[in-house]
Amino acid sequence: MTLQDIFTQIVKKKSFLCVGLDSEFEKIPVCLKNTVDPVFAFNKAIVDATTVFTIAYKLNLAFYESCGINGWQSFEKTVKYIKKNYPEIFVIADAKRGDIGNTSKMYAQAFFEKSSFDAVTVAPYMGEDSVSPFLSYPGRFVILLALTSNKGANDFQFFENHQGEKLFEKVLKTSQNWANSGQMMYVVGATRAEMLTDVRKLVPNHFLLVPGVGAQGGSLSEVAKYGMNSQCGLIVNSSRAIIFADVTEKFAERANEEAKKIQLEMESLLKEYHILKII
Amino acid sequence: MTLQDIFTQIVKKKSFLCVGLDSEFEKIPVCLKNTVDPVFAFNKAIVDATTVFTIAYKLNLAFYESCGINGWQSFEKTVKYIKKNYPEIFVIADAKRGDIGNTSKMYAQAFFEKSSFDAVTVAPYMGEDSVSPFLSYPGRFVILLALTSNKGANDFQFFENHQGEKLFEKVLKTSQNWANSGQMMYVVGATRAEMLTDVRKLVPNHFLLVPGVGAQGGSLSEVAKYGMNSQCGLIVNSSRAIIFADVTEKFAERANEEAKKIQLEMESLLKEYHILKII
Repeated sequence: MTLQDIFTQIVKKKSFLCVGLDSEFEKIPVCLKNTVDPVFAFNKAIVDATTVFTIAYKLNLAFYESCGINGWQSFEKTVKYIKKNYPEIFVIADAKRGDIGNTSKMYAQAFFEKSSFDAVTVAPYMGEDSVSPFLSYPGRFVILLALTSNKGANDFQFFENHQGEKLFEKVLKTSQNWANSGQMMYVVGATRAEMLTDVRKLVPNHFLLVPGVGAQGGSLSEVAKYGMNSQCGLIVNSSRAIIFADVTEKFAERANEEAKKIQLEMESLLKEYHILKII
Repeated sequence: MTLQDIFTQIVKKKSFLCVGLDSEFEKIPVCLKNTVDPVFAFNKAIVDATTVFTIAYKLNLAFYESCGINGWQSFEKTVKYIKKNYPEIFVIADAKRGDIGNTSKMYAQAFFEKSSFDAVTVAPYMGEDSVSPFLSYPGRFVILLALTSNKGANDFQFFENHQGEKLFEKVLKTSQNWANSGQMMYVVGATRAEMLTDVRKLVPNHFLLVPGVGAQGGSLSEVAKYGMNSQCGLIVNSSRAIIFADVTEKFAERANEEAKKIQLEMESLLKEYHILKII
């Protein structure tokens, strides 16, 4: 997938929404619990109900690994289902992997060969050779952790050298030597929207994957204000606030409504910042 | 498992060897390729052949995830096999995970509840709340990445503040507020053995998981010289040099020989540094 493909979708759907399929087994609606594969049944219903408002889905591996082999099955079935039925959708493995070269190569195989993800999130701590194996797949993206949405981001990401450069800034700068915006994106949390100004100084053209809107409390309009570029440049994720908006048999209908609410807000922002023409 | 349990094993086996089950499917000996589960058959044979010289096994998730569901099955069977037959062995999930709190909680469930690992490696980039969910399991350990064995470690781990403190030192210091040596260990690569002096100034009592001996070129005697403490304090991993020492039907026999060679060197070092009495 190319950046142009992503932008085409943004314009078509008037949205830059990513729905996070953090499909925790314990929270799956009771009405699905007796199906063969409740997590897959849930994901399928959520995807079918939200895809009209969505340009991307993000599967966080933790929620699948916590169910062992069954979880891994639900995970693989979900990716296949999305790719078969909605091939234009950008599908992200939110795995936060990263290891020595020969090991990262295996992770890249897992997500880009064994499964057909378009992108995988990677942690930067181990540096270039932990990231580069993921970059040998043209048309696939690394989404590198830069500034995360959680409290613990303060522990190390703001660690500062004598010139006042912070670790997350060092990550943004250094990693641009590894790949350009056609293969690299960055995670920047919505809970730090004001920091997006600093981020944009370093990576004006890259797409940013922005978690933290919704349950974590980030503001969509702030994110757009500080982070949007001429190609939108944002993929904003919401997970729990959409997929678990309701736990009765109306869960998919409610997910659709929640996704639509966010899409409408996004449409308005895309117009405000002149990405979409106001007709 | 307690630190005392680990030390008891070190004394009993005169070894501080961890065998890394980086069981890449493509490298599994041909003679096992027609078994029901070649990776599990391989792991079982390697474990049976090396356990007499070994205090720990480390399963790197990448090698299992790259085989999808089959890989996940081999992975779960291997952990169960080790824990059932050799309950005294320290079993590490080399997963290098780390995510926001509610997600790390799911990873902790995957490795400590769904599987029975004694420890999991965690990347520090996202800070305290990405690590703490793993610490709510008494008797289980977080092994936090500090100074890794790969070239890319130079990209960020040596990033230095105005007082000359490096990022990996900041990680070692800060994380001691999260747990003591009874629940926390650190990854320090053998390829940087001379740095162990600096590491030991900050964490004199913690166990260190030391990868990089063998195929990556680290020296065991240097690691012992700079890193050993009064309880040994080292778990040194070797993967490829042992498990793929031979790819014929003699692979297990050769793995046994390679593990024995390292154990003998370790025994000698344990005596040299007065952990074992010389009789």
